[in-house]
Amino acid sequence: MDPFKAPVGIFDSGIGGLTVFAAVRRRLPDESLLYLGDTARLPYGTKSAETVIRYAKECAGFLVERGVKAMVVACNTASAYALPELAAALEVPVMGVVEPGCLAALDASRGGAIGVIGTSGTVASNAYGSVIKKLRPNARVVSRACPLFVPLVEEGWTDGEITKAVVDRYLNGLASEGVDTLILGCTHYPLLAGEIARHVGAKVTLVDSAEATAGSLAAALDEGGLLADSQGGTEHHIYVTDLPARFETVAHRFLEGSIPQVSRVDL
Amino acid sequence: MDPFKAPVGIFDSGIGGLTVFAAVRRRLPDESLLYLGDTARLPYGTKSAETVIRYAKECAGFLVERGVKAMVVACNTASAYALPELAAALEVPVMGVVEPGCLAALDASRGGAIGVIGTSGTVASNAYGSVIKKLRPNARVVSRACPLFVPLVEEGWTDGEITKAVVDRYLNGLASEGVDTLILGCTHYPLLAGEIARHVGAKVTLVDSAEATAGSLAAALDEGGLLADSQGGTEHHIYVTDLPARFETVAHRFLEGSIPQVSRVDL
Repeated sequence: MDPFKAPVGIFDSGIGGLTVFAAVRRRLPDESLLYLGDTARLPYGTKSAETVIRYAKECAGFLVERGVKAMVVACNTASAYALPELAAALEVPVMGVVEPGCLAALDASRGGAIGVIGTSGTVASNAYGSVIKKLRPNARVVSRACPLFVPLVEEGWTDGEITKAVVDRYLNGLASEGVDTLILGCTHYPLLAGEIARHVGAKVTLVDSAEATAGSLAAALDEGGLLADSQGGTEHHIYVTDLPARFETVAHRFLEGSIPQVSRVDL
Repeated sequence: MDPFKAPVGIFDSGIGGLTVFAAVRRRLPDESLLYLGDTARLPYGTKSAETVIRYAKECAGFLVERGVKAMVVACNTASAYALPELAAALEVPVMGVVEPGCLAALDASRGGAIGVIGTSGTVASNAYGSVIKKLRPNARVVSRACPLFVPLVEEGWTDGEITKAVVDRYLNGLASEGVDTLILGCTHYPLLAGEIARHVGAKVTLVDSAEATAGSLAAALDEGGLLADSQGGTEHHIYVTDLPARFETVAHRFLEGSIPQVSRVDL
């Protein structure tokens, strides 16, 4: 396949990575995208590093077989646990959402006190904390796992009394620790940005890794001479490991504009 | 293996089936039990029939290879979707939690209006409704999916303001529909029984399928001449598909008394 026309692969444990898909589609409108959501085995956020790494390798292998020229790990948990293994195993450029999110947060932070919220897996991995400390050793990082946020979003309860109470409980005390920037370290969390912003107040900047990741991808493709030109037209496709029906029902919450064709695959 | 000494197999998508394990261990103290929790792929409740059937067959196959003399499907979603396929494929007696739960509910119901709460998958399957209607055609069944109950239990939030609000939202109007018996159609839900009972009031009987299932198992083993005698001693073992650490942490919420050894396996 002509490398310029080869697609970019994006994978996630399920549906949340569509926020990354959307950001990449806006930023790089000439690129064809293959998205894989491992919906039969989601979520990754409650599972062990060992299991997440195994699943991530299978997802990446599926996309490599389809000739992708670059790979985006659009799942925070998989980025946190599996990125070194994937980078070592793959011959194409691979990037996760953690490092772009950290760069964007350091760019936004005035005082260098950065909050990170994510799944149990992402927080347990301390992936954000390690990257931030490497980039700015005197930064202070405060992490919180918020396991109910994903089920709330998937249920469609992105506001209202219950969601407000859950947000208040998880984020209680975060602002008083001096955090001035908060990384939404899970692709579902931007859908709760309204309630999160209400809780932390206007002085705290929320960082969504999706936009930052699209920027990093553009830079990596440019550097590798892999950017598609605008001649070829684009083809997007979505693969899921469980039946497409539920995915399609929820996809519109994450993805503005048209939803590409969704097919079921076995890994 | 001596069939009297062969173990009984019990499987679930994860940890909730330990309520069934506990009921069987109390009811049949001379039986050895093998429990398999498919923690690497949990939950089943949000996934399609096709995927749940595939996973259930793999779980059953694993236990059959270890020589079980009977099989209990301790997951409501897997019972709802996969029981006919498993019964056709296996040479040992197999039972789910749905039919025992229905029998217990019909036994408890005065007016014949029975409520069923469960995961999206269990409710979508209408498994409880079909069995109840078959057993008592003039019964009335009211079903509600409660997708946030499992994450609430796994987070350990079994009471308090947030749990109360979620219970109130899901069960709103159930009592006014004349329901006098409510089946807790998910093995996690007995841990929310306090809040559920508060909402529906003392006139509604809550039915936990675990005890009923242990009774059905005892009857089936007796009928098949498969009951263990009290001479041999028992050996229990738990297998999980993700790392044991998290399972062991949460297991004590579901299982009174000692927790058997937990090993990791691949399916």
